[in-house]
Amino acid sequence: MSTAPEPRLRRPLIGVTMGDPLGIGPEVIVRALADTALRTEARFAIFGLHDVLELAADQLEVAPFWWRQPFEHGPRVGSGVLVVDFDDIPFARSGGPRGPDALAGEASFRFVEEAVRHLRAGTIDALVTGPICKESWQLAGRGFPGHTELLAARFDTRRVTMMFAAQGLRVALASAHVPLFELRHQFTIGLVHQPIDLLDRALREWWGIEAPQIAVLGLNPHAGEGGLLGDEEQRIIEPAILMARQSGIHVSGPLPADTAFTPQVCRRYDGIVAMYHDQGLIPVKMAAFHEAVNVTLGLPVIRTSPDHGTAFDIAGKARADAGSMTAAIRLAIELATARARRSTPAVTG
Amino acid sequence: MSTAPEPRLRRPLIGVTMGDPLGIGPEVIVRALADTALRTEARFAIFGLHDVLELAADQLEVAPFWWRQPFEHGPRVGSGVLVVDFDDIPFARSGGPRGPDALAGEASFRFVEEAVRHLRAGTIDALVTGPICKESWQLAGRGFPGHTELLAARFDTRRVTMMFAAQGLRVALASAHVPLFELRHQFTIGLVHQPIDLLDRALREWWGIEAPQIAVLGLNPHAGEGGLLGDEEQRIIEPAILMARQSGIHVSGPLPADTAFTPQVCRRYDGIVAMYHDQGLIPVKMAAFHEAVNVTLGLPVIRTSPDHGTAFDIAGKARADAGSMTAAIRLAIELATARARRSTPAVTG
Repeated sequence: MSTAPEPRLRRPLIGVTMGDPLGIGPEVIVRALADTALRTEARFAIFGLHDVLELAADQLEVAPFWWRQPFEHGPRVGSGVLVVDFDDIPFARSGGPRGPDALAGEASFRFVEEAVRHLRAGTIDALVTGPICKESWQLAGRGFPGHTELLAARFDTRRVTMMFAAQGLRVALASAHVPLFELRHQFTIGLVHQPIDLLDRALREWWGIEAPQIAVLGLNPHAGEGGLLGDEEQRIIEPAILMARQSGIHVSGPLPADTAFTPQVCRRYDGIVAMYHDQGLIPVKMAAFHEAVNVTLGLPVIRTSPDHGTAFDIAGKARADAGSMTAAIRLAIELATARARRSTPAVTG
Repeated sequence: MSTAPEPRLRRPLIGVTMGDPLGIGPEVIVRALADTALRTEARFAIFGLHDVLELAADQLEVAPFWWRQPFEHGPRVGSGVLVVDFDDIPFARSGGPRGPDALAGEASFRFVEEAVRHLRAGTIDALVTGPICKESWQLAGRGFPGHTELLAARFDTRRVTMMFAAQGLRVALASAHVPLFELRHQFTIGLVHQPIDLLDRALREWWGIEAPQIAVLGLNPHAGEGGLLGDEEQRIIEPAILMARQSGIHVSGPLPADTAFTPQVCRRYDGIVAMYHDQGLIPVKMAAFHEAVNVTLGLPVIRTSPDHGTAFDIAGKARADAGSMTAAIRLAIELATARARRSTPAVTG
């Protein structure tokens, strides 16, 4: 480690997709980036619709702080906030009902596709995605259930895992959007091993933690109580933990889930692997409802997003809390900056 | 409602069973009741072994604050703390290893049986149980898996439900010590309806809330997302909610479990019904690890207990935190006092 002053790094360029134009994406992005402190830490390219952002700024009584560029030009220059405007999309804010809509789906899909192109090319350093409506993507004939699946396909990886970060808690999920009792058909050693492996890599490569300590939760009450309350701990989770240990990962468990998130226990670990959606997300949302950030593990690029949806019921009313979007942007900046620092040759004295 | 001054009530007599003499029960009871403020609010009868309590007091450097009476005399008189001493049990603290033990099992079983006799007779107003070791009960040939089952048998009821109270959160469980995937064989409308019904009664009769608002959680991620992520919400939980509503209970749900425990949501409800152990206990233990109290619903008597076990590994070292025992005693006093107040004829002006 060098004790010399760090070389001055260029500020990262963070891509932000606007999400569904009928959802709360536009307003939380405008509200988050209206914070000038955030804008001194990074440069931004918002992939979206200029008119919709302008209307959101108007409703929030924020003076537009960006410059506009048609999307064909790409986010190649500039130092502040650039809006990559998809001005070929005939989307007009009508004030009509907000809900699933084919054109909104097509628009929000194209924002992500274009941002991915720039991620792959290295033009942008990290991606923050605004919330989309899955039904709108379906109406637009785009056969991806969500961002994660689209990104996995475009980066040609099948090993992706959802992770959430909130208030120092970092939780990766072995399973997510599966009916609870259906999970038993998918509950394999591989399913449990993958998030351990991907979380370990992310903590080392993105968070810069040299030897991360990871805890794996049990599936059953009291982590099965030695087999009395279920055998998945012995048949599946313990072998997955052993496999991870054999590849050098520092991993403990299976821990009883009910006590794992008490401060005394969870502060011993850099990350926690939960077996299913609610087991991981109840504590994350309790710890920090408006600051929880979703991170996709397994991609070769940094992608974060707020943990809320389009919230059509409150969209366009300047009422949406931008805390989670702000946290998602902050984490993207932090991870992109740390990665750039590590890949910059050290200046030794 | 009367606005006249409340009639002065006698302080309730709270029965406390010592739990396993090799566990942390004795020391957390001594530590909790060493608080003189607690002792001004109620009178106490500890069912246990005088010698063991004296040793615990010695280790905690607390002067004994009780008087002793052989158990045959029963807790009939007195105003402070009485130890109902089972001096016929030849239990000597040996300093040996702490763990499952037949004599300790026999002793802790008899403490509860004797306390139950006094509960039934009305000699004591509420019961707080110290932690027992299920394996020790088995070694002693006592065929009950735990307190709850013993109490249900003695009070001749099969409808009992575990409830937890911590920091304003009140959570009843539809299921508790069942392997997660086995729960699907037991997951019926009746299983979900019972805790709604018992929680409603307890909130009205014990907590004195006139029209309690109850929320029921979903089983699946996003509470099933309209059937996309599981159908138990539609097949089982919603009919149970309807049944409860038809009997006049104010009940909402099924709510997505991950957001239900955020302050914005849970403060709207007086109680929450969780579908399984970890779904209810992750939030309870996060909210207040050392202050969570277990309450048995469905009994005609008040019974609380700390939410920890015997903790043999730290027992006898004066290290155990008495927070949960203190909270269990406090809640027993509060519920017994409120019940006595309601059953006392109102003094109208």
